Amino acid sequence: MNRTADLRSRSLIRITLISLLTLAFLSITAAEANSPTAGKQKMVIQVSDNSPGKWNLALNNARNAQNALGGADNVDVEIVVYGPGIGMLEMDSETGNRVANALDQGVKIVACENTMRARDLTKGDMLPDIGYVPAGVIEIMKQQQQGYTYIRP
Amino acid sequence: MNRTADLRSRSLIRITLISLLTLAFLSITAAEANSPTAGKQKMVIQVSDNSPGKWNLALNNARNAQNALGGADNVDVEIVVYGPGIGMLEMDSETGNRVANALDQGVKIVACENTMRARDLTKGDMLPDIGYVPAGVIEIMKQQQQGYTYIRP
Amino acid sequence: MNRTADLRSRSLIRITLISLLTLAFLSITAAEANSPTAGKQKMVIQVSDNSPGKWNLALNNARNAQNALGGADNVDVEIVVYGPGIGMLEMDSETGNRVANALDQGVKIVACENTMRARDLTKGDMLPDIGYVPAGVIEIMKQQQQGYTYIRP
Repeated sequence: MNRTADLRSRSLIRITLISLLTLAFLSITAAEANSPTAGKQKMVIQVSDNSPGKWNLALNNARNAQNALGGADNVDVEIVVYGPGIGMLEMDSETGNRVANALDQGVKIVACENTMRARDLTKGDMLPDIGYVPAGVIEIMKQQQQGYTYIRP
Repeated sequence: MNRTADLRSRSLIRITLISLLTLAFLSITAAEANSPTAGKQKMVIQVSDNSPGKWNLALNNARNAQNALGGADNVDVEIVVYGPGIGMLEMDSETGNRVANALDQGVKIVACENTMRARDLTKGDMLPDIGYVPAGVIEIMKQQQQGYTYIRP
Repeated sequence: MNRTADLRSRSLIRITLISLLTLAFLSITAAEANSPTAGKQKMVIQVSDNSPGKWNLALNNARNAQNALGGADNVDVEIVVYGPGIGMLEMDSETGNRVANALDQGVKIVACENTMRARDLTKGDMLPDIGYVPAGVIEIMKQQQQGYTYIRP
């Protein structure tokens, strides 16, 4: 048998198999990255109504999601508050205690700075320990694109 | 020509082509699985307001989706009722007849058991033939992840 | 060395490499097509409440999305109006001026013809320059499937 051709064939088999395995790995990785169920569960909850009933419902949704999925280690929950809903996060909010409790439980709660500016609110007017985002609607868009499930109570 | 090397080359061509075809098939399948338009259309409609107007709107949305897409064979429609919306599915609901009709038309309608427990409601208090889920918000999350389009009337 | 086997090996290497590159390109293209962040940003905003407050909030959301993302060249924003929200687009709408302004700014605004038929409204009853869709709920579904982020103010 021709020794050179044999060696060439062997190395060709090796290169082909390595290429195919790499490609298979890349394909699966790309598919996984796009899969809505990849990794930790994520939920973004919108609050945009001036209604303490809705604020409580949003907080219930966050708590129920954590309970059903086994706690904050298994699900990232973020509440985005904007527009007429902003009162939920003002210092005199009817739901101030529940907001504090949710923050303790690992729920992320953010206020829209566009809304605050339009209403002459500063961070000093708001509940402690909340987060801030430049625009609530863009935060919700961004998180949906990152695989967060959108819930609008 | 060297016969052994020739045979080796032929079998290498065969293995390579089979591998490539398999990989192409797997890539396309993975891409399809992630595509939001793959297969039957699916829509999950949320009801969480204590408002017969909203209940009717949700039922209209379900009917219009079925009509526009050619009936229940072409679209899975599920209405998830939770929180202050639960009255839609109680025995004395203003929309009881329309709920029965939607169920007849193949719309799936489910009540949140978390909400029922919080309000001391049992299955005996609810309209016949509806379904039940442990947590409405988790059902909506799960269905969105399964490719259901989310509609919040 | 055997010349025929050598030539065969070389052409096999060439075919394998071209196949692998083509396949890699197809895999990446398929993955991109499914990626929710591919290409221009897109947002579909629903209006289904008979509430000028909500109409203004939807228009604010559209404007804030355009401002945050650098204008209409960077984000397609569509407002879909249906059900009890239809008054937003009737000739005597409280928000008629703001609707005209949003249209000038490149926001697409469409009315649901199902809703119009149910309320005996014709195009002559509606604000100028808006668009029309057969069913609002199907438009929202279709756009979500095309990668639009869903916002329900």
